[in-house]
Amino acid sequence: MSQLLRSAAILLIAGAAFASAALGQSPVQEAAIRKVLQSQVEAWNHHDLEGFMAGYWNSPELTFFSGATETKGWQATLDRYRKKYQAPDAEMGKLEMTDIQVEMLRPRSAFVRGRWQLALSNGKQPHGLFTLIFREFPEGWRVVHDHSSGE
Amino acid sequence: MSQLLRSAAILLIAGAAFASAALGQSPVQEAAIRKVLQSQVEAWNHHDLEGFMAGYWNSPELTFFSGATETKGWQATLDRYRKKYQAPDAEMGKLEMTDIQVEMLRPRSAFVRGRWQLALSNGKQPHGLFTLIFREFPEGWRVVHDHSSGE
Repeated sequence: MSQLLRSAAILLIAGAAFASAALGQSPVQEAAIRKVLQSQVEAWNHHDLEGFMAGYWNSPELTFFSGATETKGWQATLDRYRKKYQAPDAEMGKLEMTDIQVEMLRPRSAFVRGRWQLALSNGKQPHGLFTLIFREFPEGWRVVHDHSSGE
Repeated sequence: MSQLLRSAAILLIAGAAFASAALGQSPVQEAAIRKVLQSQVEAWNHHDLEGFMAGYWNSPELTFFSGATETKGWQATLDRYRKKYQAPDAEMGKLEMTDIQVEMLRPRSAFVRGRWQLALSNGKQPHGLFTLIFREFPEGWRVVHDHSSGE
């Protein structure tokens, strides 16, 4: 390689590393996270629920939201999966995960969990759970992602 | 206050501040976030959808997951709310948010968005969306919160 080409290559690599750091991206961390998800999918498709659960924090503090139901703790989450997918009339099926986006969070980010409830004039009270990702902008804190579900 | 009491009080306050910092908590940031949510609830209950939407990132990158449906962008999210809650036969009702937990995220955290799909032997394909919060532990990356929903 000529000296000029070598210098250009070094500049390109340094530039890419700088851009990656400036964007808060971390290919190594992202790859590690995708690997956890891939292991979960493989475990699921071998009907190995304990293996699937290895991707979750083994703590009573783990939370799992679905519909309007909160499940708290690793053991309760495993029990929920067992009940839902390993009951006599249930089936685990073949799991796929697609459109996966991984975003590393910086210090000025937060996540918020909570319950929502609407009181309607007909007496009905639709309700459910939400997960919000907040980020701090010059104009203040804003929701950048909302996942809401209910019954 | 006696000198002894004063020293004890100072120690207590310093201890609380230290514990708060050690846990990565930030009362000022948490209060700012709770204020955004409170403003959203107030706007909703005044049937002011634009005011409600002020709590969201005004960007085409905003994401909103509900059931198995992803809505992308601030405008599309406003349109969704309009269609769902301001249609002739719809009603906004009175909104409440409860059990709110705010957690500040540190650099070794990530959030993940994606789709899940199960293929069952009867040909059915239940599917939906997930939001995961990951944290890095000495043993590796683990899901600390999962919000999954579907149809």
